[in-house]
Amino acid sequence: MVKARKWIIAKNFEGAPKESNFKLVEEELPAIKNGEILLEALYFSVDPYMRAFDLSGLIGQRMVGSQVAKVLESKHQGYKPGDLVMGYFGWQSHSVHHGDEPCSLGLDSKIKPYVMPDFQGLSPSLGLGVLGMPGNTSYFGFLEICQPKAGETVVVNAAAGAVGMHVGQIAKIKGCKVIGFAGSDDKVDWLKKEIGFDAAYNYKKVDIDAALAEAAPNGVDCYFDNVGGEMSSTVINRMNHFGRISICGAISAYNDTEKPKATIIQGAMNRSELKMEGFMVYRWEDRWLEGIKQNIAWIKEGKLKYQETVTKGFENIPKAFIEMMEGKNFGKAVIKA
Amino acid sequence: MVKARKWIIAKNFEGAPKESNFKLVEEELPAIKNGEILLEALYFSVDPYMRAFDLSGLIGQRMVGSQVAKVLESKHQGYKPGDLVMGYFGWQSHSVHHGDEPCSLGLDSKIKPYVMPDFQGLSPSLGLGVLGMPGNTSYFGFLEICQPKAGETVVVNAAAGAVGMHVGQIAKIKGCKVIGFAGSDDKVDWLKKEIGFDAAYNYKKVDIDAALAEAAPNGVDCYFDNVGGEMSSTVINRMNHFGRISICGAISAYNDTEKPKATIIQGAMNRSELKMEGFMVYRWEDRWLEGIKQNIAWIKEGKLKYQETVTKGFENIPKAFIEMMEGKNFGKAVIKA
Repeated sequence: MVKARKWIIAKNFEGAPKESNFKLVEEELPAIKNGEILLEALYFSVDPYMRAFDLSGLIGQRMVGSQVAKVLESKHQGYKPGDLVMGYFGWQSHSVHHGDEPCSLGLDSKIKPYVMPDFQGLSPSLGLGVLGMPGNTSYFGFLEICQPKAGETVVVNAAAGAVGMHVGQIAKIKGCKVIGFAGSDDKVDWLKKEIGFDAAYNYKKVDIDAALAEAAPNGVDCYFDNVGGEMSSTVINRMNHFGRISICGAISAYNDTEKPKATIIQGAMNRSELKMEGFMVYRWEDRWLEGIKQNIAWIKEGKLKYQETVTKGFENIPKAFIEMMEGKNFGKAVIKA
Repeated sequence: MVKARKWIIAKNFEGAPKESNFKLVEEELPAIKNGEILLEALYFSVDPYMRAFDLSGLIGQRMVGSQVAKVLESKHQGYKPGDLVMGYFGWQSHSVHHGDEPCSLGLDSKIKPYVMPDFQGLSPSLGLGVLGMPGNTSYFGFLEICQPKAGETVVVNAAAGAVGMHVGQIAKIKGCKVIGFAGSDDKVDWLKKEIGFDAAYNYKKVDIDAALAEAAPNGVDCYFDNVGGEMSSTVINRMNHFGRISICGAISAYNDTEKPKATIIQGAMNRSELKMEGFMVYRWEDRWLEGIKQNIAWIKEGKLKYQETVTKGFENIPKAFIEMMEGKNFGKAVIKA
C-alpha cells in the first residue's frame, strides 16, 4: 500500500491565487492492475497557465499540473521501474496511472505521459522547463509563429520567466536584436548581463513606448507576448510592416474577474499588415522530441542558458505557485518533492 | 488647353470629416508630352480608408482617391483615346499623367493606373467598386486570410457597405452561414431579404453578444472586420478553436483623436488559438485581374449582387464622402462627374 499526498482544489480562484484555494489530503493508492504504473513524483511544475483555469467544476479534485515522476512499479510494457516520466499527474506525490491513458490538462485537451529522452546528464527537473512544455512553447511558439529573420528586432515580455528568457535566447541564436520587459531591476540586470538580451526594462518603472523608441528605433518585427493588455497595444503600435505577433499567454489579465480594456490594435494591425496568432503548445505534440533535442543541443553548445527557481517540499507547492504568479521566480519555477 | 477642377486639402481631419477639410480650385492643364496621357474623370470613389489618412503633410495638394477616367489624348503606347482607366488621380476632373508612373495612395504605397478589362456590359463605375479595389478587397482579403470552409459561420460588420455586402455573398457562395452587422434597420432588412445574409442586426440597437448567441450558437469561425473596437472584442470572444480574423479596417476609430480602448482579446486569441491578420489589398496587385474576373463571373451567374449609391456632380464629392462616413450609403459610394 502506498499513501499518496495530494493537493485538491478547495475553491475557485478569485483575484490572485491563495493557499486557501487548495487543501492537502492523503489517500491510499490501490495495487496496480494490468496496464497500470505506479509513479513517485520527483518534481512538480507551477506555470502561469494554471491561473487561467476556471476551477469551479473541479472542486474536490486534485489540482492539475505536470510532474516528473519515477516509475516504481509497472504492469505496462511501455514503462519499466526507474523510468523518468513527464505527465500531467497533478499535485500528487504518488499516482497510479494506466499507461495508455492521456492525462487532463485542465482545459479540454489531454496529453499522454511520456518517458523522457536521454537528457545527457542534465537534471530531470528540466523536463518540466527548458526540456519540456515551456521549452517547446518557446521553440515552436516563437519560431513557427514569429518566423524571425536575422537582423530583425524581437520584443518579449515576462522576459525573466521560463519561456521569456528562452525565447530571447532563441532570437539571439537566430541573429535578432532582443528587447525584454520584466518586473524587477534585478531581472533586468540579469537578462542583460547573464542571458544576453540587447536591452531590457522594468515595465513597472518605464514608459513602454519611450523604452521602445530608445531600444527599437527602427521598429519591432516580432513580438512574443506572454502578457497582453496595454503593454501589447503599445508594442503593436510600434511594429513594422508585416510584423508577427505570437500570443503565448495573457498573464496581465489572469487575476482579473472583469476582462480589462486596452487601446485598440485594429488600426495598426490593418495599416502595417500585421499577423497575430495565439497558440497552445500541444498543437506540436507530434514534433515534441524535435524541440527537446534542439534545446539539449543548444544547451550543450553553450548557446542556451536555463534557470530554475526550486522550492523544496510537496507541502510548498501552493506557495511556489503563488510566488511565481507574483513574479518572484527567475526562469522556471519547480518544486522538488 | 483643358481646365481642370480639383478638390485640394484645406486642413487635416479633426473628428468627423467636414466640407471645410477641402477646397475647390481650378487650374489649366499643360499640353501632354511624350509618354503622357490626358484623362477625363467619369466616376470618383469615396472610401472609408481615406479618413484614416493624416493629411497634415498634404495641405494644398489635391485630395487622394481613385477614379474611373476616359483617355482623351495619349502619347503613351499603353493607352489610346477612349480607353477606360482606373487610377488614383485624386479628386480632380481632368488629369495629365505619365503612363509609366504609379499614383500615390496617400499612404506609402503607389499603384500604377490600368486600363480596365472588358466588363461585359456592366457599368464602368463598377471599376471603383465590385470590379475594383473594394471588390478585390473582399475577394482576396476574405478568401486568403479567412480561408472559409463550407458549413462554417462567418461574421462581417459594416455589412451593408461595398466590402461587407460582397464578403457576405462570397461566404454564401462558399457554403458558409453569414451574420452581418450594419447601422440601420433598413440596411438589416435589405441584407437579409435582398443580399441573402442568414442573419443581420442593427449594431446600434442590439447587444452584440446576445445577437451572436442567437445567430451563432455554435460559435464563429471567420470574422471579417471593418470596424474594430468593442464589437470586435465581443465577436473574438465567441470564436471557435482555430478561428480566423481578417482585419480590413477599423472604421469605428477613424474619427477619434485618441485611440479608444476595448476589452482585451489576448486571452481568447491564446485559448482558442485564433489567427488575426491585417491587410492592404494591393499586396495582391499581381493577381488583380483574377479577382475582377471572378467577380464578373459571379455577377453574370447571378451569385453576386452589387449596390451603388451614386451622387451626381464633381462639386458634391466632399458631401458624398461625409455621408458615406456617416453610413448613409448602401453598397459602394461613387460620384458621377
